[in-house]
Amino acid sequence: MPQNAYQKLETLFSRLLRIEDAIAILQWDGAVMMPEGGASARAEEIATLKGLHHKLLASPQVSALIRKADQLELNGWQRANLGEMSRQWIHARAVPARLIEALARATSACEIVWREARAKGDFKLVKKPLEKVMSLTREAGQAKAEPLGVTPYEALMDLYEPQAREARIEDLFADLEEFIADTLPLVLERQGDALPNPSVKVAQTSQKELGRRLMGVIGFDFNKGRLDESAHPFSGGTPYDVRITTRYDEAEPLKSLMGVAHETGHALYEMNLPKDWRHQPVGRARGMALHESQSLIVEMQACRSRAFAKFLAPLLDEAFGGSWDAKALRRKLAWVKPGFIRVDADELTYSAHVILRFRLERAMIRGDLKVADLPGAWNQCMTRLLGIVPPSDREGCLQDIHWYDGAIGYFPSYTLGALSAAQIFAAAEAATPGLRHGLEHGDFQPLMGWLKENIHSQGCFGSTDDILKRATGAPLSAAAFKAHVKRRYLSGANAK
Amino acid sequence: MPQNAYQKLETLFSRLLRIEDAIAILQWDGAVMMPEGGASARAEEIATLKGLHHKLLASPQVSALIRKADQLELNGWQRANLGEMSRQWIHARAVPARLIEALARATSACEIVWREARAKGDFKLVKKPLEKVMSLTREAGQAKAEPLGVTPYEALMDLYEPQAREARIEDLFADLEEFIADTLPLVLERQGDALPNPSVKVAQTSQKELGRRLMGVIGFDFNKGRLDESAHPFSGGTPYDVRITTRYDEAEPLKSLMGVAHETGHALYEMNLPKDWRHQPVGRARGMALHESQSLIVEMQACRSRAFAKFLAPLLDEAFGGSWDAKALRRKLAWVKPGFIRVDADELTYSAHVILRFRLERAMIRGDLKVADLPGAWNQCMTRLLGIVPPSDREGCLQDIHWYDGAIGYFPSYTLGALSAAQIFAAAEAATPGLRHGLEHGDFQPLMGWLKENIHSQGCFGSTDDILKRATGAPLSAAAFKAHVKRRYLSGANAK
Repeated sequence: MPQNAYQKLETLFSRLLRIEDAIAILQWDGAVMMPEGGASARAEEIATLKGLHHKLLASPQVSALIRKADQLELNGWQRANLGEMSRQWIHARAVPARLIEALARATSACEIVWREARAKGDFKLVKKPLEKVMSLTREAGQAKAEPLGVTPYEALMDLYEPQAREARIEDLFADLEEFIADTLPLVLERQGDALPNPSVKVAQTSQKELGRRLMGVIGFDFNKGRLDESAHPFSGGTPYDVRITTRYDEAEPLKSLMGVAHETGHALYEMNLPKDWRHQPVGRARGMALHESQSLIVEMQACRSRAFAKFLAPLLDEAFGGSWDAKALRRKLAWVKPGFIRVDADELTYSAHVILRFRLERAMIRGDLKVADLPGAWNQCMTRLLGIVPPSDREGCLQDIHWYDGAIGYFPSYTLGALSAAQIFAAAEAATPGLRHGLEHGDFQPLMGWLKENIHSQGCFGSTDDILKRATGAPLSAAAFKAHVKRRYLSGANAK
Repeated sequence: MPQNAYQKLETLFSRLLRIEDAIAILQWDGAVMMPEGGASARAEEIATLKGLHHKLLASPQVSALIRKADQLELNGWQRANLGEMSRQWIHARAVPARLIEALARATSACEIVWREARAKGDFKLVKKPLEKVMSLTREAGQAKAEPLGVTPYEALMDLYEPQAREARIEDLFADLEEFIADTLPLVLERQGDALPNPSVKVAQTSQKELGRRLMGVIGFDFNKGRLDESAHPFSGGTPYDVRITTRYDEAEPLKSLMGVAHETGHALYEMNLPKDWRHQPVGRARGMALHESQSLIVEMQACRSRAFAKFLAPLLDEAFGGSWDAKALRRKLAWVKPGFIRVDADELTYSAHVILRFRLERAMIRGDLKVADLPGAWNQCMTRLLGIVPPSDREGCLQDIHWYDGAIGYFPSYTLGALSAAQIFAAAEAATPGLRHGLEHGDFQPLMGWLKENIHSQGCFGSTDDILKRATGAPLSAAAFKAHVKRRYLSGANAK
């Protein structure tokens, strides 16, 4: 039977997803299994597959098929699928091959220099390569801006968080900045002195074992995924085979455990994507904001909650030895402390790190901030937001790989994710009476069942805002996040 | 600068090799890392990449470029490279897409049924699926026979061992059959009763540690490869990143150790392929016969030798505990015993297993043997060659995956490899005075250096026979293998 235009597109995009999935496994292998000497060949393998993918996707025939399919009678999911195909086609088509290659070369060159610059804390080393990356990225943003009908910076964000808009993020972030400024001193005052760090050391194997147990408690299906180690923890692989990683520090067993909780939140989003559609664009994860919301719901909303600490403390006793008191554990899991490093930040100050990066990267793409002036602007912004100045650029503008690797427009997703997490968790709790009580007994079913139905199984059926509105009754705002912070850090029960 | 036809082909084939390398890593992952639930998605990913590969290779433009390039002035390696390209193109082009898909479906269906049939020892279950595979494979062989200018069975062998010829293999194998018939009784008589099996159990971690140490001794570069575990040991990955596997049996520590030696032989062939050419067809391994010869040189010729047993015995003492006597170890490493299972066979009776498979698969492809008559023919052949009859088809015609998976024409490579191993090792020893003495002290450098120069670095520069002639001064014969068997199993020093 001959296929119609829409069916032809389904065949093509299913193939494209298989290529993407193959790349995801090769990338996981590169970070987790590959010996160092295999790196340059691996880069070539991935570049070849990406090149084939781009060639298949950017072809003019795809555009013709999309136009034809648009005239057909399609059901809601098919229509949404066609929309995603069209968005991907625009992204692929907008940037000429010459620019794609130049970007690939510039980012891989810049990343190598960045490693050295970060190790030495010397921004000057990487200034020129970063200028090149920024200028090419700006060019790519400009090329996509018109066909997407957005600003260049929005076009860059669109790759990670489709339909993200600068003005709205600016408003949300301004609101959040004020909230942090008002709240942080109160939280710090109320929280009092730090607990002495228990000097207990926990062997990797014990940490790993408990990590796997926690994954099972949350709902991870080990028949469809793995836990491994890597220098930088991540969630990778495919919806059929999710690969998450963590790293172990014998002196900080809670760090790997909360890391595992975080990545398991990502993993369950992937594992619960709509079965009938996950071989199509509409059946994949909506965007990085919603993805981050799922990891933060599991880590921040659930696993760092007072309720879950009651379940976790005896588990730690058993697995790690020593004597873990639920209240002390809870204080440790919800400790607030302004610091220089984003990935080590608590959930309140984390947003400040993101607001800073959003403002600086947008200014660089707009041409309002020169790369040469980045270190100064960084420190100024850090002072304004958290009142601290990093001792060197290593703890400042050199700490994250994103910009040096060409991932510009990614950072806002983290905080959009944190706001979404609070809003979604509040809605889940309101709709599911036993939810918080379940956490006290390690029962994640009420929470994860609700998330599966209202978020995971939605794939890309509608925009992030559509999904949020359907799930929570409202578009994204900072209200739930603020309420969450006040309840967790300023309510009576949490007093020192 | 515009590329000429040959340069265009280099660009294309370098891309094709990157796709093949990506597939190799995905296959390794599937056998070593992947959770079971990921299997069907992985099959789709690999099928998609193979489909893209085939489409790129089988295009008529490639044929036009090959014809044009043939007119250009090329140096020896370029000319050999063009020959390999042409051979690959013929293989890809000869078989219509319809037949490739039918074969893919038939083999994956047959393989699944085979697992059940083997578990139950019931050949009838898999008769029909195997008939389908055989009939489609015959069709593929017929389609390739004419463009390659060979018989259908030779066309099938060509995929694994290019330019292998039936008549020559028949002669070699007839000679070998007679040799086994004459020699086996003498060896068994001379060898006497089996040693009592030491009841020592060796933990996996100790076996693994010694395995890695042995790999290092042989010359494996851990910056460019890994050792892991899998149900069926294999050597995979790419020349840039070689992945070998083994399996551990606590009661049989020598088995995993000799398995590791075997796969390390394969690995070093890959690691030592010509640096400047390994991104091109001419720079890859010549064929399965030469590949097997490299594993057998390391395992059979070197690691099971009297010389190496002197080095190994104290190592075993240290790593496994107990008391390992060099002479007893040597007897154990070179123990001959006719059995039903090919993969457990010693080097003398191994060839009988291969001769049997060669004759039966060729007869099936020629139409001289019906699939329904396979079990009977198997048992008859086994009686004639080794004088034993398997108790059930599980230990008979169901034991190997090859036929059920569509790999017909592969088996002869094993014995061609064993004959080549003896011939190459003899030449290496003749040319390198300290070689055997080196093995007594765990010094593989003389052997591996000679192999690198004379075999590994030759890639596909010339046919298997060309490489053999350059390295040993003669085309392949069974003479060196026979001399090796007589020296090892019938000379005075090896008496019980």
